[in-house]
Amino acid sequence: MKTLFRNASILKMDDSPILFGDLVVNENRIAYIGSDSEKYGPFDRVIECNGNIIMPGFKNAHTHNAMTFLRSKADEDNLHDWLFNQCFPREALLKPGDIYALSKVALLEQISGGITSCLDMYFYVLEHKKAMEEMGFRGVVQGCVNEAYKTNDLVKLYNEINTDDALVRFSIGHHSEYTTSLDEMLATKKALDETKSPLQIHLSETKSEVEECIKKRGMTPCEYFDSLGLWDNGGVCFHCVYLSEHDIEIFKKKNIAVVTCPGSNLKLASGIAPIKRYLDEGLLIGIGTDGPASNNCLDMFKEMSLVSNLARIQTGDSNAIKAYDILKMATVNGAKILNLEDCDTLEVGKYADIIELDLSKPSMQPINNAVNNIVYSGSKDIVKLTMINGKILYEDGKFFINEDIDSIYEKAQEITDRIDKEFFEKNN
Amino acid sequence: MKTLFRNASILKMDDSPILFGDLVVNENRIAYIGSDSEKYGPFDRVIECNGNIIMPGFKNAHTHNAMTFLRSKADEDNLHDWLFNQCFPREALLKPGDIYALSKVALLEQISGGITSCLDMYFYVLEHKKAMEEMGFRGVVQGCVNEAYKTNDLVKLYNEINTDDALVRFSIGHHSEYTTSLDEMLATKKALDETKSPLQIHLSETKSEVEECIKKRGMTPCEYFDSLGLWDNGGVCFHCVYLSEHDIEIFKKKNIAVVTCPGSNLKLASGIAPIKRYLDEGLLIGIGTDGPASNNCLDMFKEMSLVSNLARIQTGDSNAIKAYDILKMATVNGAKILNLEDCDTLEVGKYADIIELDLSKPSMQPINNAVNNIVYSGSKDIVKLTMINGKILYEDGKFFINEDIDSIYEKAQEITDRIDKEFFEKNN
Repeated sequence: MKTLFRNASILKMDDSPILFGDLVVNENRIAYIGSDSEKYGPFDRVIECNGNIIMPGFKNAHTHNAMTFLRSKADEDNLHDWLFNQCFPREALLKPGDIYALSKVALLEQISGGITSCLDMYFYVLEHKKAMEEMGFRGVVQGCVNEAYKTNDLVKLYNEINTDDALVRFSIGHHSEYTTSLDEMLATKKALDETKSPLQIHLSETKSEVEECIKKRGMTPCEYFDSLGLWDNGGVCFHCVYLSEHDIEIFKKKNIAVVTCPGSNLKLASGIAPIKRYLDEGLLIGIGTDGPASNNCLDMFKEMSLVSNLARIQTGDSNAIKAYDILKMATVNGAKILNLEDCDTLEVGKYADIIELDLSKPSMQPINNAVNNIVYSGSKDIVKLTMINGKILYEDGKFFINEDIDSIYEKAQEITDRIDKEFFEKNN
Repeated sequence: MKTLFRNASILKMDDSPILFGDLVVNENRIAYIGSDSEKYGPFDRVIECNGNIIMPGFKNAHTHNAMTFLRSKADEDNLHDWLFNQCFPREALLKPGDIYALSKVALLEQISGGITSCLDMYFYVLEHKKAMEEMGFRGVVQGCVNEAYKTNDLVKLYNEINTDDALVRFSIGHHSEYTTSLDEMLATKKALDETKSPLQIHLSETKSEVEECIKKRGMTPCEYFDSLGLWDNGGVCFHCVYLSEHDIEIFKKKNIAVVTCPGSNLKLASGIAPIKRYLDEGLLIGIGTDGPASNNCLDMFKEMSLVSNLARIQTGDSNAIKAYDILKMATVNGAKILNLEDCDTLEVGKYADIIELDLSKPSMQPINNAVNNIVYSGSKDIVKLTMINGKILYEDGKFFINEDIDSIYEKAQEITDRIDKEFFEKNN
C-alpha cells in the first residue's frame, strides 16, 4: 500500500520551518518527503492536501481509556471522593471483557481528535492491548503489581510484548504512593531493574497527597521513591502539580519526565502545575488528557490551550510558553516519554503516524502563523485525517476500522448501565 | 419552507427535562414541539435526528468579529502592549470594506461552532451589520460615540435598525473607561437615555485598569460610570475580572449583567473572574469569546469548559458551578443580555435558531448525562447542524450561504497581508 500526500504544508516537528511539498508513505513508514514525489509512484491512494498541514499525530502521555463508563458521572466530586467513593467501587464491578469494550470508545475519540498514540494505565493490560490492536492504534499499556500480576509476570509481559515492530508496547509502573504497598513497590522495582524501565506513576497530583506522605514518611512521594531506588532507570510522572524544590532536583538528576494533565487538574480542583518553571529547569514535559472520568474528554486541542493559558495566568506573563513549544510537548516530547521515538517527527524511515489538519476551517483563517492557529484556535473539527502505522483510520468525520461504530457504543452503554445498576443496589 | 426535526432529544433550555420527540419549523419560527408532528406536514425537509440533541444555538455575548486579521498576531503580548502597540496601530490601517470582509470569517467560525447570535463591538457598525445580514446571521452590532458617530446618529441608527423583525439589531456602548473622554461618555448617556438602552462596555478587565482609574478619579470604573448616571438604564459589562464589593452592589442595584470571557482573560494574563461569587450574588452572567485577536478562537465549547474549570480551581470546590448553569449562561442568559429573548429557548412561536449536536461522536458516549457530556466533553466537531432564523446555514461540515467560502478567505487574507505590510513599513 503506497499513499501520496500531495501539496501539503509539512510540519515535521523537528524544528525546521514548514515545508510545502509531498510526502510518500510506503506500507507503514514514511518513504519520501520533498517536491519530486512522482518517481515514487504509482500510488494506491493520492490525497490532495490543498496546502493543509500534515504533521505527526498527537501523543497522549496519560490516560485511563476504559474509564469511559465513568464519563459525566460524579462530575462535582473532589479527587478523593471521586476516586474512593465513585471510581474504585464502580471499578470493582468491572467484569472480564469490559475493559476491552470500554477502551474502544476512548480510542475512537482520540483517533477523531488526531491522537495517534497514548500511554494507557489500567488493570488487565491484555484487554486494552487487544482493543488497540484490533483498531490499529499505536499505544503503550502500563501494567503494575496488583492482584493480577506478580513481578515475574511483568518481566515476562514486557519481554513478550515489546517485540521490534509491535504496534502496542508494554511499560511498568504503579498507580500512586498512597495506593501501593511497600511490598508491591519493591516487587515493581525488581521488574523495573530487570527491564531497565522508568517508573511510571501518578505523582504529587494534590496538595493533600504530598502533605499526607510527608506526615507519614517524613518525605515527599518523589523523595520516598528515590529512597527506594525506584528512579534508578528514570521516571515518567503524571500530574506533578506540587513538586518541591528538592523534587525538581531529583527529577533533573534521575531523568524523570513530567506529564501534565491540566484539564483533569482543574476539573478535580487539584491545582495548576508550574509548567513554565519545569520548562525553565529543562525537564522533559509531555501532555496527557487523563481519563474520560476526570476531564472528561480526550482532546489534545483543549489541553494545549490550557497549558498555554494556565502558564500565562500563573506567571502573569503572556509570553510564558511559545505555541511551538506546546506543540512539541503534544507530539515529539510525548513520543519520547512513550519511548516511541520511531514516530515522533515526520522523517523518512519513521512510522507513518500522520494527521492532516484542515486549514480551510474558519478558525484557521487567515493564516498569520499556522502553528499559533493550531495551538490557540484549533479544535477537533480541524482534524481531516488520522493515519496510524500507514493506515487511514479516520477521514472527513468517518472511521475506517474493521468494526461497526454503533455496536461499540451499544456495548459500552450496556456495561455502563449494568455497573450503574449494581452500584446503586450495593449502596442503597 | 417547513422543516421537521424528527426523533430528537429536545433540550429546550427552559429548565424542563430533555424531551424525546419532534420539532417543526415553519418559515423562521418554531411551530410545534411534541410527538405528533405528522399533522403539521407536508415538510420541505425532514431531518432524521436519531436521538441527537437539538437545542437553542449559543449566544456569544462579546466579540469583535472583524479582528480576524489580528488572529495569531502578537500572541505573546500583555493586554496593554497588545492593544496599544499592535491592535490600535493596525486598526488605524483598516479601509472601508475591510470590516465587512473580515467579519465574515468570524461569522463562519461561529456558525460552524453552533453560535447563532453574537454581540459584536466594532467600528462602523453598518459594515459588520451587512456581513451578518448577507450570511443570514442573527446579531447585535454595538455602536459608540467616536469619530464615526455623534449622539444623534446613535439614536437614529437605533430607531432605524431595531425594527420588529430585524435579523440584526443595534445597541449602544463604549470601548472602556480608559479610552473614552468625558464628553463622549456624556454624549453616549444622552443616546442611552433617549433609547432606554443599557450601557455596554469593557469593565474592570485588568487590575491596572481599575488601579489607574482609582488613582485618577478616586473611584472604580463602575463607580465612575455610576456617578455619571450611565447605569440608569442598566448595563452589560464585558470581562468583570476585578469588581469590588461596592461594584457588585451597584451591579445588583442597577441591573448590570456580567459577560465573562475566560479564554481572553487567560491569554492576556488579565486574571480569573470570580464567576461563582457573581452567581451566588444573583447577577445575570453570559459568556463571550472576545475577538479572534485575544482568544484566539470563537468557540463556545472551550469557553464553557473554562468557566467550569476556572471556578473549580478558584474556589477549590469541584462542585462550584453545575454544567446546566453553564449551558444556560451560553444560551438563555446570553439571549437576555443581547435582548434576544425571542430566540432564547425552544418554544412554539420563538425564532428557529437551533443547533443539532451529534451524540454519535465518541466524546458524547456513553451517555450518563447528556448535558454534562456537552459542557465537559463537547467540542466543535459535535455540531452537526446550525439553523438561524429557520434556515440551515451549516450541516455536516458544509456551509450553506450565498457566497463562496474560499473567496471570503482570500479577501480576508489579502486585507491581513496589506495591513501587515503597511504596519511594518510604518514601524521600521
